[in-house]
Amino acid sequence: MLINFTPWWAVSGVASLSWGETKRGTVSTERVVDVELRWGDSDAFAHVNNVVFFRLLEEARARVIPTDGPGSTILSGGLVVAEQQLKYTAPLHYRTAPIQVGMSVDHIGGSSFRLACRVFDSTSGDVYAEGFVSLVAYDFTLGSPRKLSDDERSWLTA
Amino acid sequence: MLINFTPWWAVSGVASLSWGETKRGTVSTERVVDVELRWGDSDAFAHVNNVVFFRLLEEARARVIPTDGPGSTILSGGLVVAEQQLKYTAPLHYRTAPIQVGMSVDHIGGSSFRLACRVFDSTSGDVYAEGFVSLVAYDFTLGSPRKLSDDERSWLTA
Amino acid sequence: MLINFTPWWAVSGVASLSWGETKRGTVSTERVVDVELRWGDSDAFAHVNNVVFFRLLEEARARVIPTDGPGSTILSGGLVVAEQQLKYTAPLHYRTAPIQVGMSVDHIGGSSFRLACRVFDSTSGDVYAEGFVSLVAYDFTLGSPRKLSDDERSWLTA
Amino acid sequence: MLINFTPWWAVSGVASLSWGETKRGTVSTERVVDVELRWGDSDAFAHVNNVVFFRLLEEARARVIPTDGPGSTILSGGLVVAEQQLKYTAPLHYRTAPIQVGMSVDHIGGSSFRLACRVFDSTSGDVYAEGFVSLVAYDFTLGSPRKLSDDERSWLTA
Repeated sequence: MLINFTPWWAVSGVASLSWGETKRGTVSTERVVDVELRWGDSDAFAHVNNVVFFRLLEEARARVIPTDGPGSTILSGGLVVAEQQLKYTAPLHYRTAPIQVGMSVDHIGGSSFRLACRVFDSTSGDVYAEGFVSLVAYDFTLGSPRKLSDDERSWLTA
Repeated sequence: MLINFTPWWAVSGVASLSWGETKRGTVSTERVVDVELRWGDSDAFAHVNNVVFFRLLEEARARVIPTDGPGSTILSGGLVVAEQQLKYTAPLHYRTAPIQVGMSVDHIGGSSFRLACRVFDSTSGDVYAEGFVSLVAYDFTLGSPRKLSDDERSWLTA
Repeated sequence: MLINFTPWWAVSGVASLSWGETKRGTVSTERVVDVELRWGDSDAFAHVNNVVFFRLLEEARARVIPTDGPGSTILSGGLVVAEQQLKYTAPLHYRTAPIQVGMSVDHIGGSSFRLACRVFDSTSGDVYAEGFVSLVAYDFTLGSPRKLSDDERSWLTA
Repeated sequence: MLINFTPWWAVSGVASLSWGETKRGTVSTERVVDVELRWGDSDAFAHVNNVVFFRLLEEARARVIPTDGPGSTILSGGLVVAEQQLKYTAPLHYRTAPIQVGMSVDHIGGSSFRLACRVFDSTSGDVYAEGFVSLVAYDFTLGSPRKLSDDERSWLTA
């Protein structure tokens, strides 16, 4: 599947994907997804491990980007994580109730976009971590970043 | 063990741990640790998954911070990850030879320090990811950040 | 928390926990729990990795054993996994709909019990894996297996 | 890569892969592989989690089966895990020194073989877990189990 893979970062024209402070809600509204924790997410300190938070973000993306209809080519057309950051703001303990992951596009370029993210509890308002993930639309067959289509840009900025 | 846990971020006096661009080697020399990959680190794209890179950083810290002698209280005295970031610069595939994780302190505060990190191949020089991890020395018994001791500062700046 | 830990297997009186073929539903009815998959559960073959199935079983146990009221001391009183087995019967692919984990006690001893387990789709009836997990009630403070109480036995055989 | 995937268990002629008690060293000698633990392998009980042991077995297989020369088609020709079991015999704690995984073929069929496995410390002789993994040689292109070649049988029984 990745036979012709050429890394996006080897292709000119994709500049740095860090654009300063995240600004939740500036380009799109925030989409919020329920993600379930697992008991096994906890480390020896009995907290959800810091690494796992990035797994929660990944899972939230897998659940928010549509697999059919408008916006569905964002993932199916090829997408790679270019950069990500999290600041941990409260310890999170295992519970059976899902936590919430909020994502809002706060920057969109020709071939890339950035999601301002937070892991939080929508009932209490407690925020456990916040940061961003920068993603590049990438054509694995051609081996280069691909332009975001009008349909994709429309979905990303809604 | 965490009965009296109070998050460091709820305690005044610990400012933001993002201090702009990382500057490898400005406070300490770079320590380089071998970390072994696992076949299971790869995701459905047959690359080492982006989340796993933070696991590699965690493992490198577990292996570089001493468990005896000078500097050993850094970990045994309590340490929490406050913030971390990675920029992915090349795809990494499973191999049996270990990869290298380089860590150098590029900022040190009263109770915290930041490690400029990179995941790379010391033979080829290829860099797969680079970024930073900010850590806070934390007294879990007292439930507050703790001052880095002279011994700890000495180890961190060597 | 595990300061006085003494392994159950070092204590006489706990015999082998393999009791031949599993017999779903012989001691208790089958309890079925929804567990969500994660995109990151897939390995380089784009299937949910064989190792992850044991994580799904663990999560199902964490969700089926009560944290309050009858049966709640099963977990809070100390419980360790002694042995487990799975036979994989169909490939499982990531999907956003939860899969189901069925568990029924098919053996109960003085300090231990065995769960016949299956990972399946309750709608289609497809079974992805089946096997068992043997667990030992263990008093971590005393450092020895503990007798299952009448309340616990009652919950386990319901 | 798995476009034509048809599960081996749907194909007649592959019988049950449980052949009673494992007998280490009956078909092949035991091959022993070093595998490194990760701090993150520990769960909230501060032990290497039971699920992770299967990851250690997977990693040991990835490191013992050759990628070039005799036996190398075992993995490259397609291989799936059909069944696996572990009995946990001692708690394992994180350490920087690698643990050892021993594997010896104790049954070999036309298209499948079973590895008697143990996770142990070769210095102290302590055994943390033992069990087996049954594997099926599988041609993903044809979508069916494939016969083990003479070269493969020779490697497996050495």
